[in-house]
Amino acid sequence: MGSNEAKALPRPDARALKSAIDALAARFGNRLITSLAVREQHGHTTTWLKTQPPDAVVMAQNTPDIQDVVRICAQHRVPVIAFGTGTSLEGQVNAPAGGVCIDLRDMNRLIAVHPEDLDCVIEPGITRKTLNEQLRDQGVFFPIDPGADASIGGMASTRASGTNAVRYGTMRDNVIALKVVRADGEIITTGTRAKKSSAGYDLTHLFVGAEGTLGIISELTIRLRGIPETIAAAACSFTTVAGACQATILAIQTGIPVARIELLSETQVKASNVYSKLTLPETPLLLLEFHGSEAEVAEQTQRFAEIAAECGGGEFQWTAKAEDRTKLWQARHDAYWAVRGLRPGAGVVATDVCVPISRLADCVAETEEDIARLNLMAPIVGHVGDGNFHCSLLCDVDDADEFARSEDFMHRLVERALAMGGTCTGEHGIGQGKQKYLQAELGSEAIDAMRALKMAMDPLNILNPGKIIPV
Amino acid sequence: MGSNEAKALPRPDARALKSAIDALAARFGNRLITSLAVREQHGHTTTWLKTQPPDAVVMAQNTPDIQDVVRICAQHRVPVIAFGTGTSLEGQVNAPAGGVCIDLRDMNRLIAVHPEDLDCVIEPGITRKTLNEQLRDQGVFFPIDPGADASIGGMASTRASGTNAVRYGTMRDNVIALKVVRADGEIITTGTRAKKSSAGYDLTHLFVGAEGTLGIISELTIRLRGIPETIAAAACSFTTVAGACQATILAIQTGIPVARIELLSETQVKASNVYSKLTLPETPLLLLEFHGSEAEVAEQTQRFAEIAAECGGGEFQWTAKAEDRTKLWQARHDAYWAVRGLRPGAGVVATDVCVPISRLADCVAETEEDIARLNLMAPIVGHVGDGNFHCSLLCDVDDADEFARSEDFMHRLVERALAMGGTCTGEHGIGQGKQKYLQAELGSEAIDAMRALKMAMDPLNILNPGKIIPV
Repeated sequence: MGSNEAKALPRPDARALKSAIDALAARFGNRLITSLAVREQHGHTTTWLKTQPPDAVVMAQNTPDIQDVVRICAQHRVPVIAFGTGTSLEGQVNAPAGGVCIDLRDMNRLIAVHPEDLDCVIEPGITRKTLNEQLRDQGVFFPIDPGADASIGGMASTRASGTNAVRYGTMRDNVIALKVVRADGEIITTGTRAKKSSAGYDLTHLFVGAEGTLGIISELTIRLRGIPETIAAAACSFTTVAGACQATILAIQTGIPVARIELLSETQVKASNVYSKLTLPETPLLLLEFHGSEAEVAEQTQRFAEIAAECGGGEFQWTAKAEDRTKLWQARHDAYWAVRGLRPGAGVVATDVCVPISRLADCVAETEEDIARLNLMAPIVGHVGDGNFHCSLLCDVDDADEFARSEDFMHRLVERALAMGGTCTGEHGIGQGKQKYLQAELGSEAIDAMRALKMAMDPLNILNPGKIIPV
Repeated sequence: MGSNEAKALPRPDARALKSAIDALAARFGNRLITSLAVREQHGHTTTWLKTQPPDAVVMAQNTPDIQDVVRICAQHRVPVIAFGTGTSLEGQVNAPAGGVCIDLRDMNRLIAVHPEDLDCVIEPGITRKTLNEQLRDQGVFFPIDPGADASIGGMASTRASGTNAVRYGTMRDNVIALKVVRADGEIITTGTRAKKSSAGYDLTHLFVGAEGTLGIISELTIRLRGIPETIAAAACSFTTVAGACQATILAIQTGIPVARIELLSETQVKASNVYSKLTLPETPLLLLEFHGSEAEVAEQTQRFAEIAAECGGGEFQWTAKAEDRTKLWQARHDAYWAVRGLRPGAGVVATDVCVPISRLADCVAETEEDIARLNLMAPIVGHVGDGNFHCSLLCDVDDADEFARSEDFMHRLVERALAMGGTCTGEHGIGQGKQKYLQAELGSEAIDAMRALKMAMDPLNILNPGKIIPV
């Protein structure tokens, strides 16, 4: 098992915890849940980090519920952990010091849509698929797609991105304003619906990516886009990963506004062919999507086809049919499950790094060499237009030797990305799993600054303690 | 004269100030300047706020210079104010408590260009025109253009934007990473060159827009774009301001990627015709620019022409010739000077608000009515694609009645923008001039949070005191 880093974190005083849970029970009745099964679901992680369940779960229905949980927990100095769908990948919802989990799934209302301003106001628990279903008949959509049907509040908290980010940006670029419950239960408004503002410190972006450690997001105003007139998807096989990366680099450098450009390594294509019943050539593959008017899409695809041909790309398999497109992207989103199928019973650790795009081909190639050298299985998929890629490492965590090789691989992957001017995580966040890399990436002064910000916003350290900042 | 808000701010102890200046003189020799003329230039504002000069100016040449000034000032508890070009518009470089100004104009090196990654690393004092001249032969440019030839460090500090923001975003969207000198002289690195990251709190965006109150930016990594294959500019006259705004709204809502879309009110067109020797029809005008491949630009212009015709727009005056384009945009950039020419001797206050684009036509129309009702002269120009516009208010500040009407107008303008879901400043910042509106916009909890962040990052309150946060 991987270490959860924050194992030294003290639990709250037992009597204080009981008082807090009694007070929450009086306030929330059967919306306070203490059964082990439910608590374990809420500390569940999709990593090799071990589950650390909270002491209780509250099903919140509105902002005053969040405020009351935070106030009661603050009074008794008990940790509070916000929970969306539990699809984070670095232990963000684990409860290393116990405490109370606020489950926000019932706060899933679309409060207001302003298609004329291309924005909407939502509660944090709404998931991206539900939101897009509710928006569709107004001709707009929310473009951020991390694969999982995550809650938008959770996506903001981990600064998520995903397949569409190359064109539409990440959560950082698509959150306009927030309402946030402060560590003392009061509510901070971080901005207005204006598209831009220079009014004071950027509180919005302080909370985006803070993983619930500085406040709990209770409402979001987010950017929408018009549904494109034409969407075309394509699969293009390459003889080498280097060729696929080179085509990506050239597409970005020449300014082709691809909406999606995803790499699947040869191992990943094999796994996806089996799992998703596809017949893709078993070589490195780029999956692409182009958005725009019919003329724009035609021009973009032609320009990309020329680049692909220069880089050893094979023939395109084009599709403008919605159901074929959906099948292709579903296969991409099911990459994780396809990998699990390669070796049933083994753990799968999905890790991510991001490098300047000029270093992408080198970084992926060296990583593939490392996988082979260490005799590991780790298919690669990537949002390569951003220089961001993932390894889905298969590992029997009870096999000490394999676990050691796996840990070695992960360290070397991060070191490689940092040495190339990149980051230890493009979109999964720090959580528990990557705290050990933060200092190497940004230096101790940056961590001091983060610690000072944490202390300023949460002096009692009750908001998701043990995350982001190394203890 | 307008009030500078922070007039109650205490000056440093006189002996401590003398000790600090003596120490700086010993360290910097003739790069420490205390002449009144130079000091007044560094407290100069282009508003009706009165000049508040610092006690001394240090010409910094490198990061260790900044560190030493900050350390010496911290030791003696003397304010430190970073200075780029002095083109801010809300008193950001004034020294209400005296102190030491660090002039960064000599820190103007282009440290590294990575055209393959579309980024570069610069010192804070380089101006946008100088930067773009140095980048041009590599086929890339930095798109943010606030009009003035401001320093990039200053533009980051005020979260500036300007004419190209509708397509390329603001400084918020175009700063990738910073090095910042902390209030104790140590250096914080806020990020890497990766295009995106989820590694911890977003320190980069904490400093972007902080107006030098949380740290002093000593190095920036910023995003570049490829110089478009085709650039076409156009002027299009409208019978009414409402029609021009409506055309803007439709262009944005239908997703035409205009690179610039600028409104000039009738009064502004008259002023610009005189000042810039143009012969534009003296009615409300949109100035536009389209970037892309030849086919993309042709499609964008055709789509916009159809919209303009629906909204009462007259014939387009197109130009793809670089010198004609430059003349048109120079006239836009000279709007402030053209306005000054309307009434020589009067003060000009350039103020800005930003509203959701659906409210733009209403906000501009009501503002024009208010100008007429109050018998004021205030030409309007605007980055209307963002819902952002400026009034250049002409006012004899020694005429008590006119000054009172002007202040009334400014208050009502902000109230109108806030009531429409907008912000009191889209791009000029808070500085001294707009502190009184921050609470109305965001509420006291947000100001509490800003105050806590300020205390966390600058416990001695030496970094540009008296700015942003109301005393």
